[in-house]
Amino acid sequence: MSSRLVIRGGLVVTAADEIHADVLIEDGRIAALAASGTPAAEAFTAERTIDATGKYVIPGGVDGHTHMEMPFGGTYASDTFETGTRAAAWGGTTTIVDFAVQSVGGALREGLDAWHAKAEGNCAIDYGFHMIVSDVNSETLKEMDLLVEEGITSFKQFMAYPGVLYSDDGQILRAMQRAAENGGLIMMHAENGIAIDVLVEQALARGETDPRYHGEVRKALLEAEATHRAIRLAQVAGAPLYVVHVSAREAVAELARARDEGLPVFGETCPQYLFLSTDNLAEPGFEGAKYVCSTPLRPKEHQAALWKGLRTNDLQVVSTDHCPFCFTGQKELGRGDFSRIPNGMPGVENRMDLLHQAVVDGHISRRRWIEIACATPARMFGLYPKKGTIAPGADADVVVYDPHAEQVMSAETHHMNVDYSAYEGRRVTGRVETVLSRGEDVITEREFTGRPGHGVYTPRSTCQYLD
Amino acid sequence: MSSRLVIRGGLVVTAADEIHADVLIEDGRIAALAASGTPAAEAFTAERTIDATGKYVIPGGVDGHTHMEMPFGGTYASDTFETGTRAAAWGGTTTIVDFAVQSVGGALREGLDAWHAKAEGNCAIDYGFHMIVSDVNSETLKEMDLLVEEGITSFKQFMAYPGVLYSDDGQILRAMQRAAENGGLIMMHAENGIAIDVLVEQALARGETDPRYHGEVRKALLEAEATHRAIRLAQVAGAPLYVVHVSAREAVAELARARDEGLPVFGETCPQYLFLSTDNLAEPGFEGAKYVCSTPLRPKEHQAALWKGLRTNDLQVVSTDHCPFCFTGQKELGRGDFSRIPNGMPGVENRMDLLHQAVVDGHISRRRWIEIACATPARMFGLYPKKGTIAPGADADVVVYDPHAEQVMSAETHHMNVDYSAYEGRRVTGRVETVLSRGEDVITEREFTGRPGHGVYTPRSTCQYLD
Amino acid sequence: MSSRLVIRGGLVVTAADEIHADVLIEDGRIAALAASGTPAAEAFTAERTIDATGKYVIPGGVDGHTHMEMPFGGTYASDTFETGTRAAAWGGTTTIVDFAVQSVGGALREGLDAWHAKAEGNCAIDYGFHMIVSDVNSETLKEMDLLVEEGITSFKQFMAYPGVLYSDDGQILRAMQRAAENGGLIMMHAENGIAIDVLVEQALARGETDPRYHGEVRKALLEAEATHRAIRLAQVAGAPLYVVHVSAREAVAELARARDEGLPVFGETCPQYLFLSTDNLAEPGFEGAKYVCSTPLRPKEHQAALWKGLRTNDLQVVSTDHCPFCFTGQKELGRGDFSRIPNGMPGVENRMDLLHQAVVDGHISRRRWIEIACATPARMFGLYPKKGTIAPGADADVVVYDPHAEQVMSAETHHMNVDYSAYEGRRVTGRVETVLSRGEDVITEREFTGRPGHGVYTPRSTCQYLD
Amino acid sequence: MSSRLVIRGGLVVTAADEIHADVLIEDGRIAALAASGTPAAEAFTAERTIDATGKYVIPGGVDGHTHMEMPFGGTYASDTFETGTRAAAWGGTTTIVDFAVQSVGGALREGLDAWHAKAEGNCAIDYGFHMIVSDVNSETLKEMDLLVEEGITSFKQFMAYPGVLYSDDGQILRAMQRAAENGGLIMMHAENGIAIDVLVEQALARGETDPRYHGEVRKALLEAEATHRAIRLAQVAGAPLYVVHVSAREAVAELARARDEGLPVFGETCPQYLFLSTDNLAEPGFEGAKYVCSTPLRPKEHQAALWKGLRTNDLQVVSTDHCPFCFTGQKELGRGDFSRIPNGMPGVENRMDLLHQAVVDGHISRRRWIEIACATPARMFGLYPKKGTIAPGADADVVVYDPHAEQVMSAETHHMNVDYSAYEGRRVTGRVETVLSRGEDVITEREFTGRPGHGVYTPRSTCQYLD
Repeated sequence: MSSRLVIRGGLVVTAADEIHADVLIEDGRIAALAASGTPAAEAFTAERTIDATGKYVIPGGVDGHTHMEMPFGGTYASDTFETGTRAAAWGGTTTIVDFAVQSVGGALREGLDAWHAKAEGNCAIDYGFHMIVSDVNSETLKEMDLLVEEGITSFKQFMAYPGVLYSDDGQILRAMQRAAENGGLIMMHAENGIAIDVLVEQALARGETDPRYHGEVRKALLEAEATHRAIRLAQVAGAPLYVVHVSAREAVAELARARDEGLPVFGETCPQYLFLSTDNLAEPGFEGAKYVCSTPLRPKEHQAALWKGLRTNDLQVVSTDHCPFCFTGQKELGRGDFSRIPNGMPGVENRMDLLHQAVVDGHISRRRWIEIACATPARMFGLYPKKGTIAPGADADVVVYDPHAEQVMSAETHHMNVDYSAYEGRRVTGRVETVLSRGEDVITEREFTGRPGHGVYTPRSTCQYLD
Repeated sequence: MSSRLVIRGGLVVTAADEIHADVLIEDGRIAALAASGTPAAEAFTAERTIDATGKYVIPGGVDGHTHMEMPFGGTYASDTFETGTRAAAWGGTTTIVDFAVQSVGGALREGLDAWHAKAEGNCAIDYGFHMIVSDVNSETLKEMDLLVEEGITSFKQFMAYPGVLYSDDGQILRAMQRAAENGGLIMMHAENGIAIDVLVEQALARGETDPRYHGEVRKALLEAEATHRAIRLAQVAGAPLYVVHVSAREAVAELARARDEGLPVFGETCPQYLFLSTDNLAEPGFEGAKYVCSTPLRPKEHQAALWKGLRTNDLQVVSTDHCPFCFTGQKELGRGDFSRIPNGMPGVENRMDLLHQAVVDGHISRRRWIEIACATPARMFGLYPKKGTIAPGADADVVVYDPHAEQVMSAETHHMNVDYSAYEGRRVTGRVETVLSRGEDVITEREFTGRPGHGVYTPRSTCQYLD
Repeated sequence: MSSRLVIRGGLVVTAADEIHADVLIEDGRIAALAASGTPAAEAFTAERTIDATGKYVIPGGVDGHTHMEMPFGGTYASDTFETGTRAAAWGGTTTIVDFAVQSVGGALREGLDAWHAKAEGNCAIDYGFHMIVSDVNSETLKEMDLLVEEGITSFKQFMAYPGVLYSDDGQILRAMQRAAENGGLIMMHAENGIAIDVLVEQALARGETDPRYHGEVRKALLEAEATHRAIRLAQVAGAPLYVVHVSAREAVAELARARDEGLPVFGETCPQYLFLSTDNLAEPGFEGAKYVCSTPLRPKEHQAALWKGLRTNDLQVVSTDHCPFCFTGQKELGRGDFSRIPNGMPGVENRMDLLHQAVVDGHISRRRWIEIACATPARMFGLYPKKGTIAPGADADVVVYDPHAEQVMSAETHHMNVDYSAYEGRRVTGRVETVLSRGEDVITEREFTGRPGHGVYTPRSTCQYLD
Repeated sequence: MSSRLVIRGGLVVTAADEIHADVLIEDGRIAALAASGTPAAEAFTAERTIDATGKYVIPGGVDGHTHMEMPFGGTYASDTFETGTRAAAWGGTTTIVDFAVQSVGGALREGLDAWHAKAEGNCAIDYGFHMIVSDVNSETLKEMDLLVEEGITSFKQFMAYPGVLYSDDGQILRAMQRAAENGGLIMMHAENGIAIDVLVEQALARGETDPRYHGEVRKALLEAEATHRAIRLAQVAGAPLYVVHVSAREAVAELARARDEGLPVFGETCPQYLFLSTDNLAEPGFEGAKYVCSTPLRPKEHQAALWKGLRTNDLQVVSTDHCPFCFTGQKELGRGDFSRIPNGMPGVENRMDLLHQAVVDGHISRRRWIEIACATPARMFGLYPKKGTIAPGADADVVVYDPHAEQVMSAETHHMNVDYSAYEGRRVTGRVETVLSRGEDVITEREFTGRPGHGVYTPRSTCQYLD
């Protein structure tokens, strides 16, 4: 028996179009769109109708960068897959791609299995995995091929965190060469960690232990350097490259240069770099610890370069790098030594709203909002056309969004399992009303109506943003 | 009474999506799309069904640059609006934006009226007008405002052709300032005509009269220079800029630089620059005259830069600059003096096919084909969402395209009113099968079933590519 | 009979070396240098000895850009060759290259003769001429060849001042082509005067008549545009290019880009751009008029780019563009209409001192001071090795410079025939003590001991900075 | 008792001047210069006169990059300080700066002492040392300060050769920081050795063992990458940087970019990159081994970028990287495995002649020849004004050079202790006639008249090219 649902009267916004259309959902998929008010639309019959008059009907967000239950610095990111995906849904995101982690000395498979175990049966929305490759060797390289075949089509490496997640340039080159062959996409944390560790040690030796020194030692030039290096290694390997969490204008410039040369190089930034700055890191007391993440927040002047990059498509994606640690008990591990503050910030719930605010503020257009937050991450990570658009045949991951409602962001009201909000007190215009995942309600008129286990693992094809 | 038509089983390709969907047309508009084979699709009822199995269903092409019956060098472009729009339809183009010409000393209105008179009742497909501004003065500037209000929202100026269409930098600046206020878009023919005329005179004095010297005197550096100058003038005026028929890699580089700076600067190229070269201009006898247009064809090495620009979106649009002159009697005016060869080439019928060939050749993706040939020109010139996409509510300008059919381009078989083909003998894969304009047949399974006068003047809103 | 003079004990500073040496002058030329205190030095015998202990011994300055008695806007620059060259000598400059002006419709020869007549018998120091070409035509082009042969080897054109000194791009291209053949050097006033005149008219229409609007309408982007255009025209012509009075950082960037491409493109800036800014143009009352010159003064931020350009050799020369107009009676012509303020500032007396201050301030090295103020202008304009260095065989144009003396610049004390100083009240370290021109005293321990007519016309060879 | 010598009638060429002058030498120093034929010149009295009529009189060459008796890959460079400095003198070079090597685990001092021992009493010409820092640690950093004080003012690090001479980015950053404080200059071998080693291993695994693969695996992009990385690390450290043996155009581009940004970054290239190419590496049999050095020879197209860099001063110095290994017995160690070919080429004798040939060929001017080969290396490495110029007070290191003589380069006739010439059979115009070192004959009219032990260790001041 077919379940049918129609969303009527909204403005359907995709990366390409803005149309007044009714959306017919059958069996968890978008079955049809018809121009509102036409006989064709009137002919839609369904068990249930959602009235979206005055609202936007948009694809559910695709957050290509989350770290649920991520181990870091002796603790774990405070959102489980259950709490984190629920919060994501509250924020209008219906797919996450999380990072499974290979332990040094271990197999990719082990790490992947562990992450499957964490996620399975717990997620409110669909999810996929990238694989963090901590230890490139001949076994790992072979495993990469297998993973690509089973839908893990992207691999993250770190030029930062020596001794932990760090890969040297030879390991990076080898992984890129393999990716060039098997269609995988290398994702890069681009900071010169070797040099940064020298600066960290020197800062601590000088007694510079406050959170703001985290931002000072992780220099923009060292992000730009690593970005350039990753680009050249990818060029040597003949592989595409996706640089995660770009925060420095100098790094954007390197990406722009590479793209002017016609190289298949992509960049992601995150809301925290667009809306926050070193001013936050310098907040009095130990408050700055809330804003410790890597790459670090930059001085405000960098924001303009990021917005420009998003407009010129030198940056293609906004993800969250959601990796929350509670202030109490977790961030506090770094009192007296900024290098021990767990790196990461909450955000999976805030992304769609903050980017809508950017539409309101004139930074980007409505369609670009959907492109950077839904369509391009879906294509980049091989989820298209199931995810990221509203088109016949796509999964019915749909958000009814009220563009006029106002809300105030706060830890009091958010649903992420973390004791602070990075945007505490920020007033934004726009709010998620209703969220469907494959046609089923997850959020219904601002109430959570989903359930752990609705979300399923979603294997991915290789990058679809190259053609 | 509602007329209903459904196109079933094709792959609907738009700038954003590729979906297997049935397309329902009601009263000349796209009413609905439904995933093929779903109950929703089966529920579509219509008087007529087109079977598009194994075919593409694409938006009709939007050719933003044609010159029907254009006066030039004492003669006229050989296609009338009747013959030209019919040929356009044969080639899968359902909208043209032609250039009305202001005479020096005359009013914009006069020129526009003249072009309306030429077109009205004669066109097989819809059409709009840009306005060529030959004479910027206080009256002209006021008229620009009026024209924008009535749907003529773009204005072309020439940095070439001194004494004829040429505007000096002051006139350009004034027009740009006005456009910045009234929302108009300045389109620029960017060649330093003053310098070129010196080189023309010198070449002729040296006895260099063959067609190939046309390419030598109109130097790539002088296109790049003018492109840069136009960009800076637009920057001073605070206006966006659209550079027509970009052919030199150095000009692409100037556009890329401007876009890296975040400037709202756009570039168009044409199939002749992508597929032909100075080798053609140097064909023996007077054959090269067939390829005389301005900007001129460039050495083959420039093609790679144009393709790269199309991929990186430093070039956004491919138009034809269709401006045909018969070899016999027209091109021949320039025997013994290349400067008297009428500038222009036929192409309105070939664009969609040549660009599909580029898909086959791997230069661009299928979606990018539709983007540069349909969606972006529609947005750029304020025709969206009526034109350029297949989405509920849009005009039912639809092409059923056979991606597997082969054809050989030839003057023997083409429908343009010109006695040669610039692509004579070229074999390409892909062919237009059926063309609808606002739901009515223009081409039906490779037969012309349209009529002069079906096509109507289409006022345009201001540029929609800026937001 | 041989006259011999020795300067003992100073630090001889040239563009290349800093040596403790005694300088022997015979018959107006540098005959020998010997390391101070050596037998070789002690063997120097002379009628007269100047003790330079604790002082610098430097080549006399070469000011490659002056306008004595220049007609402009209905008046004349207030320094005659007599007063101007005397002031130059006071400031340590021993050679000027002034600009003879062709009248539109007149021959180069006429203009040159007129300037010879103004200068001959009046100058305290040696002088040469550039030729301003206001009217390029076939006669002018032929005359250029003749002038090169007789030592007028550089030709200035204006992209500014339409209707007066302006050349269009065709005239510029023709002159550059000729220069490429005859070895002449094209000097360019690079501002888009056609566009600027539109902005001037609009500003005046808005009632923006104060001097500061002079700076606002002559936009940095329009200097950069013209600079770029001149570079590309020179590239087409295969000619070198010298851009005068560069003031905008965007223009420096264009020069740097051209030089990275290996083009023979050179740039000059002036002390006013290095030490003054739009803050001066905005001085209250009509005071700003004192600082009206073209290119205009720029906001302070531009100064850093100019200093950088001087350090990286993207700028090669600092000249004065000395063109003084008295505040009273001359600058005042523009009260109520900034466009009528005569363009120009005094400075021929201040250049060497201001640049020495730049040494003191750490902007440039001592040797670079001599290079940009003496050696390079001498090479650039074909005066080497007679001028610009202290080497055996060179003219004995020598300055004994006290690097420790302090002075305050003021109209009270300066020797230029103008009623204000652009640097009124500025305290600088360093002062000219004694000046020799071809071995004869012009300034002797801070007294003028020269005479009108000592200075002679100096024909120049073609540019020596190219090899 | 004073020894006096005069060189009469030559054209004295320095970096700055070309003058017809007689040069008086007293007690090993340049005492005086006088214009030839003047009374001042005639007054020079001396025990001995060298007639330089028709010849150039130039400063002795300063070769800032040699490796005498350098251990590498289990063997030693075949020139001792005795044979190598004698050959240098034959080629018109009067000063070398050789590289002392720190062993990993050892002290800088140990390495330096070892090199002093090798050189002392053996050299025909003066010499200084750079220090290769293989092992940055807190002791090393302290030693750097001491070495700067005693005249070892430059320190070389390797981004290539992991496990041997390689420093990681942290070690580089630390050394640069120290250099920023103590005035030392970091010299960088800029190749990404970690990535290259991967490519080497892969090539060998594919059976690509011939010498030409040496050039293929050491990719230009990996030189450019390392160059960029070194620049950014230096920028973070606030230190100047000198990149040795630049061979790739992409690396030149990185230097040019840095210099456009105003960074104190310098580049050296070598004659082998200017005159040889991968064509040589691909010579049949095992001949290519003769041309194996790192950075490797590049395809011919790169040469133009190097010449351009030398003209635009994006490259400042031409040194030899003289590090000869005999073909027989040494280069042959790498038969069947290119990675075992000792890296290095002979050249100390050929540099001045090859660069004079570049003058003849029009690549550079005469003065630029002296600048890149004598004056700038002297300034760069703190030897000015003793070395690198002909000026009163300088050491009398003088070469009488016959610009018209022709010679054919050959292992038959050269004086380097190596069994092949990299330039075998090459005919060049120009030849060293006579060489003085501190006033004493080393080469006298094409005969070696010097002696081991004449040359002395020359402590150096810190870099003089920064001011």
